[in-house]
Amino acid sequence: MSVSVDFIFDFGSPNAYFAYHAMGEIEERTGVKFNIIPCLLGGIFKATGNKAPIFTYSNVKGKLNYDRIEIDRFVKRHGLSNYKFNKHFPVNTVLLMRGAVAAQMDGQFDTYLAAGLRAMWEDSKKMDDPEVFAQVFTAAGLDGAQLLARTQDQEVKDKLFANTEAAVARGTFGIPTFFVGDEIFFGKERLGQVEEEILAQQQG
Amino acid sequence: MSVSVDFIFDFGSPNAYFAYHAMGEIEERTGVKFNIIPCLLGGIFKATGNKAPIFTYSNVKGKLNYDRIEIDRFVKRHGLSNYKFNKHFPVNTVLLMRGAVAAQMDGQFDTYLAAGLRAMWEDSKKMDDPEVFAQVFTAAGLDGAQLLARTQDQEVKDKLFANTEAAVARGTFGIPTFFVGDEIFFGKERLGQVEEEILAQQQG
Repeated sequence: MSVSVDFIFDFGSPNAYFAYHAMGEIEERTGVKFNIIPCLLGGIFKATGNKAPIFTYSNVKGKLNYDRIEIDRFVKRHGLSNYKFNKHFPVNTVLLMRGAVAAQMDGQFDTYLAAGLRAMWEDSKKMDDPEVFAQVFTAAGLDGAQLLARTQDQEVKDKLFANTEAAVARGTFGIPTFFVGDEIFFGKERLGQVEEEILAQQQG
Repeated sequence: MSVSVDFIFDFGSPNAYFAYHAMGEIEERTGVKFNIIPCLLGGIFKATGNKAPIFTYSNVKGKLNYDRIEIDRFVKRHGLSNYKFNKHFPVNTVLLMRGAVAAQMDGQFDTYLAAGLRAMWEDSKKMDDPEVFAQVFTAAGLDGAQLLARTQDQEVKDKLFANTEAAVARGTFGIPTFFVGDEIFFGKERLGQVEEEILAQQQG
Protein backbone atom coordinates (compact mmCIF):
# COMPACT_ATOMS: atom_id res chain seq x y z
CA MET A 1 0.00 0.00 0.00
CA SER A 2 1.28 3.47 -0.87
CA VAL A 3 1.97 5.55 2.23
CA SER A 4 2.24 9.34 2.36
CA VAL A 5 4.56 11.01 4.87
CA ASP A 6 4.40 14.78 5.32
CA PHE A 7 7.17 16.60 7.18
CA ILE A 8 5.97 19.97 8.50
CA PHE A 9 9.16 21.97 8.13
CA ASP A 10 10.76 25.28 9.05
CA PHE A 11 14.50 26.01 9.01
CA GLY A 12 14.21 27.83 12.34
CA SER A 13 14.32 24.78 14.60
CA PRO A 14 17.52 22.79 15.14
CA ASN A 15 15.25 19.77 15.48
CA ALA A 16 14.22 20.23 11.84
CA TYR A 17 17.91 19.93 10.90
CA PHE A 18 18.20 16.78 12.99
CA ALA A 19 15.03 15.24 11.59
CA TYR A 20 16.12 16.03 8.03
CA HIS A 21 19.39 14.19 8.58
CA ALA A 22 17.69 11.16 10.16
CA MET A 23 14.98 11.05 7.49
CA GLY A 24 17.24 9.64 4.78
CA GLU A 25 17.81 6.37 6.61
CA ILE A 26 14.07 5.91 7.09
CA GLU A 27 13.42 6.66 3.42
CA GLU A 28 16.00 4.05 2.47
CA ARG A 29 14.67 1.37 4.80
CA THR A 30 11.00 1.91 3.92
CA GLY A 31 11.23 3.08 0.32
CA VAL A 32 8.93 6.03 1.16
CA LYS A 33 9.92 9.58 0.21
CA PHE A 34 9.11 12.24 2.82
CA ASN A 35 7.08 15.14 1.47
CA ILE A 36 8.56 18.29 3.01
CA ILE A 37 5.98 21.03 3.51
CA PRO A 38 7.48 24.48 4.13
CA CYS A 39 5.56 26.27 6.89
CA LEU A 40 6.22 29.33 9.02
CA LEU A 41 7.04 28.26 12.59
CA GLY A 42 6.27 31.81 13.74
CA GLY A 43 2.82 31.47 12.19
CA ILE A 44 2.28 28.09 13.86
CA PHE A 45 3.28 29.58 17.22
CA LYS A 46 1.00 32.58 16.72
CA ALA A 47 -1.97 30.38 15.78
CA THR A 48 -1.50 27.91 18.65
CA GLY A 49 -0.02 30.05 21.44
CA ASN A 50 3.07 27.84 21.54
CA LYS A 51 6.68 29.03 21.70
CA ALA A 52 10.17 27.54 21.38
CA PRO A 53 11.19 25.22 24.26
CA ILE A 54 14.17 27.49 24.85
CA PHE A 55 11.68 30.16 25.94
CA THR A 56 9.02 27.91 27.54
CA TYR A 57 11.64 26.30 29.76
CA SER A 58 14.06 29.21 30.19
CA ASN A 59 13.42 29.28 33.95
CA VAL A 60 13.20 25.52 34.54
CA LYS A 61 16.36 24.20 36.12
CA GLY A 62 17.74 21.15 34.34
CA LYS A 63 15.37 21.03 31.37
CA LEU A 64 17.42 22.87 28.74
CA ASN A 65 20.57 21.14 29.92
CA TYR A 66 18.79 17.82 29.36
CA ASP A 67 17.69 18.96 25.89
CA ARG A 68 21.37 19.63 25.11
CA ILE A 69 22.28 16.13 26.30
CA GLU A 70 19.66 14.68 23.93
CA ILE A 71 21.04 16.83 21.09
CA ASP A 72 24.55 15.54 21.80
CA ARG A 73 23.27 11.95 21.73
CA PHE A 74 21.44 12.54 18.43
CA VAL A 75 24.51 14.22 16.91
CA LYS A 76 26.69 11.30 17.94
CA ARG A 77 24.27 8.61 16.78
CA HIS A 78 23.77 10.16 13.36
CA GLY A 79 27.33 11.43 12.88
CA LEU A 80 26.28 15.09 12.64
CA SER A 81 29.49 16.57 13.98
CA ASN A 82 29.11 19.73 11.85
CA TYR A 83 26.07 20.83 13.83
CA LYS A 84 26.42 24.18 15.57
CA PHE A 85 23.68 26.15 17.34
CA ASN A 86 23.10 29.33 15.35
CA LYS A 87 24.63 32.27 17.17
CA HIS A 88 21.89 34.58 15.82
CA PHE A 89 19.06 32.42 17.21
CA PRO A 90 16.16 33.07 16.98
CA VAL A 91 16.42 33.81 13.26
CA ASN A 92 13.27 35.10 11.59
CA THR A 93 12.65 32.51 8.88
CA VAL A 94 10.08 34.25 6.72
CA LEU A 95 12.57 34.88 3.89
CA LEU A 96 13.93 31.35 4.11
CA MET A 97 10.49 29.77 4.11
CA ARG A 98 9.17 31.86 1.24
CA GLY A 99 12.34 30.96 -0.62
CA ALA A 100 11.62 27.30 0.13
CA VAL A 101 8.14 27.59 -1.34
CA ALA A 102 9.57 29.28 -4.44
CA ALA A 103 12.29 26.63 -4.76
CA GLN A 104 9.63 23.91 -4.66
CA MET A 105 7.61 25.68 -7.36
CA ASP A 106 10.73 26.16 -9.45
CA GLY A 107 12.08 22.59 -9.14
CA GLN A 108 15.22 23.34 -7.14
CA PHE A 109 14.10 22.42 -3.65
CA ASP A 110 16.65 19.72 -2.76
CA THR A 111 19.62 22.02 -3.33
CA TYR A 112 17.88 24.90 -1.57
CA LEU A 113 17.01 22.75 1.45
CA ALA A 114 20.50 21.38 1.92
CA ALA A 115 22.11 24.82 1.54
CA GLY A 116 19.63 26.51 3.88
CA LEU A 117 20.07 23.90 6.60
CA ARG A 118 23.84 24.04 6.33
CA ALA A 119 23.79 27.85 6.58
CA MET A 120 21.49 27.82 9.60
CA TRP A 121 22.82 24.88 11.62
CA GLU A 122 26.43 24.44 10.58
CA ASP A 123 27.67 27.86 9.47
CA SER A 124 25.67 30.12 11.86
CA LYS A 125 24.59 32.43 9.06
CA LYS A 126 22.18 35.28 9.79
CA MET A 127 19.63 34.09 7.26
CA ASP A 128 17.09 36.83 7.95
CA ASP A 129 19.54 39.27 6.39
CA PRO A 130 18.63 39.54 2.67
CA GLU A 131 22.26 39.96 1.60
CA VAL A 132 23.41 36.89 3.51
CA PHE A 133 20.42 34.99 2.12
CA ALA A 134 21.32 35.83 -1.47
CA GLN A 135 25.02 35.08 -0.94
CA VAL A 136 24.37 31.66 0.61
CA PHE A 137 22.15 30.41 -2.18
CA THR A 138 24.34 31.83 -4.91
CA ALA A 139 27.31 30.04 -3.36
CA ALA A 140 25.23 26.83 -3.49
CA GLY A 141 24.81 27.18 -7.25
CA LEU A 142 21.34 28.78 -7.26
CA ASP A 143 20.40 32.34 -8.25
CA GLY A 144 20.33 34.07 -4.86
CA ALA A 145 19.11 37.41 -6.19
CA GLN A 146 16.30 35.78 -8.11
CA LEU A 147 15.27 33.70 -5.08
CA LEU A 148 15.25 36.84 -2.98
CA ALA A 149 12.99 38.52 -5.54
CA ARG A 150 10.70 35.49 -5.53
CA THR A 151 10.13 35.90 -1.76
CA GLN A 152 8.10 39.01 -2.61
CA ASP A 153 5.76 37.27 -5.08
CA GLN A 154 2.19 37.09 -3.91
CA GLU A 155 1.71 33.47 -5.01
CA VAL A 156 4.74 32.49 -2.90
CA LYS A 157 3.51 34.40 0.16
CA ASP A 158 0.03 32.94 -0.23
CA LYS A 159 1.30 29.39 -0.58
CA LEU A 160 3.39 29.64 2.60
CA PHE A 161 0.41 31.06 4.46
CA ALA A 162 -1.86 28.28 3.16
CA ASN A 163 0.67 25.55 4.05
CA THR A 164 0.95 26.92 7.58
CA GLU A 165 -2.78 27.27 8.07
CA ALA A 166 -3.37 23.72 6.80
CA ALA A 167 -0.68 22.31 9.11
CA VAL A 168 -2.28 23.97 12.14
CA ALA A 169 -5.71 22.72 11.09
CA ARG A 170 -4.27 19.17 11.11
CA GLY A 171 -3.02 19.60 14.68
CA THR A 172 0.52 20.94 14.25
CA PHE A 173 1.85 23.05 17.12
CA GLY A 174 5.61 22.82 16.52
CA ILE A 175 8.47 21.67 14.28
CA PRO A 176 9.25 18.95 13.28
CA THR A 177 5.80 17.41 12.91
CA PHE A 178 5.14 14.36 10.74
CA PHE A 179 1.94 12.97 9.31
CA VAL A 180 1.98 9.34 8.22
CA GLY A 181 -1.34 9.32 6.43
CA ASP A 182 -3.48 11.03 9.09
CA GLU A 183 -1.36 9.97 12.07
CA ILE A 184 0.47 12.88 13.71
CA PHE A 185 3.91 12.61 15.34
CA PHE A 186 5.78 15.48 16.97
CA GLY A 187 9.50 15.74 17.62
CA LYS A 188 12.68 14.01 16.57
CA GLU A 189 12.10 11.55 19.45
CA ARG A 190 9.15 10.14 17.49
CA LEU A 191 11.06 9.18 14.31
CA GLY A 192 11.14 5.56 15.47
CA GLN A 193 7.36 5.62 15.76
CA VAL A 194 7.12 7.33 12.36
CA GLU A 195 9.04 4.45 10.80
CA GLU A 196 6.91 1.85 12.59
CA GLU A 197 3.73 3.55 11.40
CA ILE A 198 5.00 3.63 7.81
CA LEU A 199 5.69 -0.11 7.98
CA ALA A 200 2.29 -0.78 9.58
CA GLN A 201 0.46 1.19 6.90
CA GLN A 202 2.46 -0.52 4.15
CA GLN A 203 1.34 -3.89 5.48
CA GLY A 204 -2.22 -2.79 6.17
CA MET B 1 29.13 -5.56 33.63
CA SER B 2 26.57 -4.79 36.33
CA VAL B 3 24.37 -1.86 35.37
CA SER B 4 22.29 0.24 37.77
CA VAL B 5 19.00 1.77 36.64
CA ASP B 6 17.24 4.29 38.87
CA PHE B 7 13.64 5.24 38.21
CA ILE B 8 12.78 8.62 39.78
CA PHE B 9 9.19 7.98 40.71
CA ASP B 10 6.05 9.72 41.97
CA PHE B 11 2.51 8.33 41.72
CA GLY B 12 1.23 11.75 40.63
CA SER B 13 2.12 11.50 36.96
CA PRO B 14 0.22 9.20 34.58
CA ASN B 15 3.52 8.80 32.79
CA ALA B 16 4.93 7.09 35.89
CA TYR B 17 2.12 4.54 35.61
CA PHE B 18 2.93 4.02 31.95
CA ALA B 19 6.65 3.72 32.54
CA TYR B 20 6.09 1.25 35.39
CA HIS B 21 4.05 -0.98 33.09
CA ALA B 22 6.61 -0.83 30.28
CA MET B 23 9.53 -1.39 32.66
CA GLY B 24 8.84 -5.09 33.17
CA GLU B 25 9.52 -5.98 29.55
CA ILE B 26 12.84 -4.13 29.67
CA GLU B 27 13.78 -5.87 32.92
CA GLU B 28 13.02 -9.23 31.31
CA ARG B 29 14.95 -8.54 28.14
CA THR B 30 18.01 -7.08 29.86
CA GLY B 31 18.00 -8.94 33.17
CA VAL B 32 18.38 -5.62 35.01
CA LYS B 33 16.03 -4.72 37.86
CA PHE B 34 14.94 -1.07 37.98
CA ASN B 35 15.58 0.62 41.30
CA ILE B 36 12.50 2.75 42.03
CA ILE B 37 13.30 5.86 44.04
CA PRO B 38 10.25 7.52 45.60
CA CYS B 39 10.47 11.31 45.23
CA LEU B 40 8.02 14.15 45.63
CA LEU B 41 7.10 15.57 42.23
CA GLY B 42 5.82 18.73 43.96
CA GLY B 43 9.26 19.12 45.53
CA ILE B 44 10.98 18.60 42.17
CA PHE B 45 8.73 21.23 40.59
CA LYS B 46 9.37 23.67 43.44
CA ALA B 47 13.14 23.18 43.21
CA THR B 48 13.33 23.50 39.42
CA GLY B 49 10.48 25.89 38.57
CA ASN B 50 8.86 23.23 36.38
CA LYS B 51 5.17 22.30 36.32
CA ALA B 52 2.97 19.59 34.83
CA PRO B 53 2.61 19.73 31.01
CA ILE B 54 -1.15 19.99 31.51
CA PHE B 55 -0.50 23.42 33.04
CA THR B 56 2.52 24.47 30.95
CA TYR B 57 0.58 23.81 27.75
CA SER B 58 -2.96 24.60 28.89
CA ASN B 59 -3.21 27.45 26.40
CA VAL B 60 -1.35 25.83 23.50
CA LYS B 61 -3.75 24.65 20.83
CA GLY B 62 -3.13 21.06 19.77
CA LYS B 63 -0.43 20.13 22.29
CA LEU B 64 -2.52 18.41 24.98
CA ASN B 65 -4.63 16.73 22.33
CA TYR B 66 -1.42 15.33 20.86
CA ASP B 67 -0.32 14.16 24.32
CA ARG B 68 -3.61 12.26 24.57
CA ILE B 69 -2.97 10.64 21.19
CA GLU B 70 0.45 9.48 22.44
CA ILE B 71 -1.17 8.12 25.63
CA ASP B 72 -3.71 6.19 23.53
CA ARG B 73 -0.89 4.74 21.44
CA PHE B 74 1.07 3.72 24.55
CA VAL B 75 -2.04 2.18 26.14
CA LYS B 76 -2.72 0.19 22.99
CA ARG B 77 0.86 -0.96 22.52
CA HIS B 78 1.26 -2.15 26.10
CA GLY B 79 -2.29 -3.44 26.56
CA LEU B 80 -3.10 -1.02 29.41
CA SER B 81 -6.82 -0.80 28.80
CA ASN B 82 -7.59 -0.27 32.50
CA TYR B 83 -5.89 3.14 32.46
CA LYS B 84 -8.14 6.04 33.38
CA PHE B 85 -7.10 9.66 34.01
CA ASN B 86 -7.71 10.40 37.71
CA LYS B 87 -10.80 12.58 38.05
CA HIS B 88 -9.28 14.26 41.13
CA PHE B 89 -6.11 15.35 39.27
CA PRO B 90 -3.90 16.93 40.47
CA VAL B 91 -3.69 14.71 43.55
CA ASN B 92 -1.27 15.83 46.27
CA THR B 93 1.03 12.83 46.58
CA VAL B 94 2.85 13.60 49.81
CA LEU B 95 1.01 10.85 51.73
CA LEU B 96 1.46 8.36 48.91
CA MET B 97 5.15 9.09 48.57
CA ARG B 98 5.88 8.98 52.27
CA GLY B 99 3.98 5.69 52.35
CA ALA B 100 6.17 4.48 49.49
CA VAL B 101 9.32 5.30 51.45
CA ALA B 102 7.91 3.49 54.51
CA ALA B 103 6.90 0.49 52.40
CA GLN B 104 10.46 0.28 51.04
CA MET B 105 11.90 0.42 54.56
CA ASP B 106 9.42 -2.20 55.73
CA GLY B 107 9.92 -4.65 52.84
CA GLN B 108 6.46 -4.39 51.27
CA PHE B 109 7.15 -2.02 48.39
CA ASP B 110 6.07 -4.18 45.43
CA THR B 111 2.55 -4.67 46.77
CA TYR B 112 2.32 -1.01 47.80
CA LEU B 113 3.47 0.21 44.40
CA ALA B 114 1.03 -1.92 42.43
CA ALA B 115 -1.90 -0.98 44.68
CA GLY B 116 -1.07 2.73 44.65
CA LEU B 117 -0.75 2.87 40.88
CA ARG B 118 -4.00 0.96 40.41
CA ALA B 119 -5.80 3.33 42.79
CA MET B 120 -4.43 6.44 41.08
CA TRP B 121 -4.58 5.50 37.40
CA GLU B 122 -7.26 2.83 37.12
CA ASP B 123 -9.73 3.44 39.95
CA SER B 124 -9.56 7.28 40.18
CA LYS B 125 -9.18 7.22 43.95
CA LYS B 126 -8.62 10.49 45.82
CA MET B 127 -5.37 9.32 47.37
CA ASP B 128 -4.62 12.53 49.23
CA ASP B 129 -7.58 11.69 51.48
CA PRO B 130 -6.17 9.78 54.49
CA GLU B 131 -9.27 7.57 54.79
CA VAL B 132 -9.17 6.58 51.14
CA PHE B 133 -5.43 5.99 51.45
CA ALA B 134 -5.87 3.61 54.39
CA GLN B 135 -8.78 1.77 52.75
CA VAL B 136 -6.93 1.20 49.49
CA PHE B 137 -3.85 -0.32 51.08
CA THR B 138 -5.83 -2.41 53.53
CA ALA B 139 -7.85 -3.78 50.63
CA ALA B 140 -4.53 -4.68 48.97
CA GLY B 141 -3.55 -6.82 51.97
CA LEU B 142 -1.35 -4.29 53.76
CA ASP B 143 -2.03 -2.49 57.04
CA GLY B 144 -3.48 0.82 55.82
CA ALA B 145 -3.76 2.39 59.27
CA GLN B 146 -0.18 1.52 60.11
CA LEU B 147 1.07 2.86 56.76
CA LEU B 148 -0.84 6.07 57.37
CA ALA B 149 0.80 6.38 60.80
CA ARG B 150 4.21 5.75 59.22
CA THR B 151 3.73 8.79 56.94
CA GLN B 152 4.16 10.96 60.05
CA ASP B 153 7.49 9.42 61.09
CA GLN B 154 10.38 11.81 60.87
CA GLU B 155 12.75 9.23 59.33
CA VAL B 156 10.20 8.66 56.55
CA LYS B 157 9.73 12.38 55.92
CA ASP B 158 13.49 12.93 55.93
CA LYS B 159 14.15 10.08 53.52
CA LEU B 160 11.60 11.36 51.01
CA PHE B 161 13.11 14.84 51.24
CA ALA B 162 16.62 13.47 50.77
CA ASN B 163 15.56 11.31 47.78
CA THR B 164 13.96 14.34 46.13
CA GLU B 165 16.90 16.63 46.78
CA ALA B 166 19.34 14.05 45.41
CA ALA B 167 17.24 13.52 42.27
CA VAL B 168 17.20 17.27 41.56
CA ALA B 169 20.94 17.47 42.17
CA ARG B 170 21.40 14.79 39.47
CA GLY B 171 19.40 16.84 36.96
CA THR B 172 15.82 15.64 37.45
CA PHE B 173 13.10 18.15 36.55
CA GLY B 174 10.10 15.82 36.07
CA ILE B 175 8.68 12.30 36.28
CA PRO B 176 9.49 9.72 35.01
CA THR B 177 13.24 10.21 34.94
CA PHE B 178 15.70 7.35 34.58
CA PHE B 179 19.40 7.12 35.31
CA VAL B 180 21.31 4.31 33.64
CA GLY B 181 24.53 4.67 35.58
CA ASP B 182 25.00 8.44 35.27
CA GLU B 183 23.10 8.83 32.02
CA ILE B 184 19.81 10.72 32.43
CA PHE B 185 16.66 10.04 30.38
CA PHE B 186 13.35 11.88 30.77
CA GLY B 187 9.92 10.68 29.72
CA LYS B 188 8.24 7.48 28.64
CA GLU B 189 9.33 8.30 25.06
CA ARG B 190 12.91 7.60 26.12
CA LEU B 191 12.38 4.02 27.35
CA GLY B 192 13.79 2.69 24.09
CA GLN B 193 16.94 4.72 24.68
CA VAL B 194 17.04 3.52 28.31
CA GLU B 195 17.07 -0.07 27.08
CA GLU B 196 19.77 0.66 24.51
CA GLU B 197 21.92 2.34 27.15
CA ILE B 198 21.54 -0.64 29.49
CA LEU B 199 22.69 -2.98 26.71
CA ALA B 200 25.58 -0.65 25.81
CA GLN B 201 26.76 -0.47 29.41
CA GLN B 202 26.42 -4.23 29.80
CA GLN B 203 28.71 -4.71 26.83
CA GLY B 204 31.12 -1.93 27.87
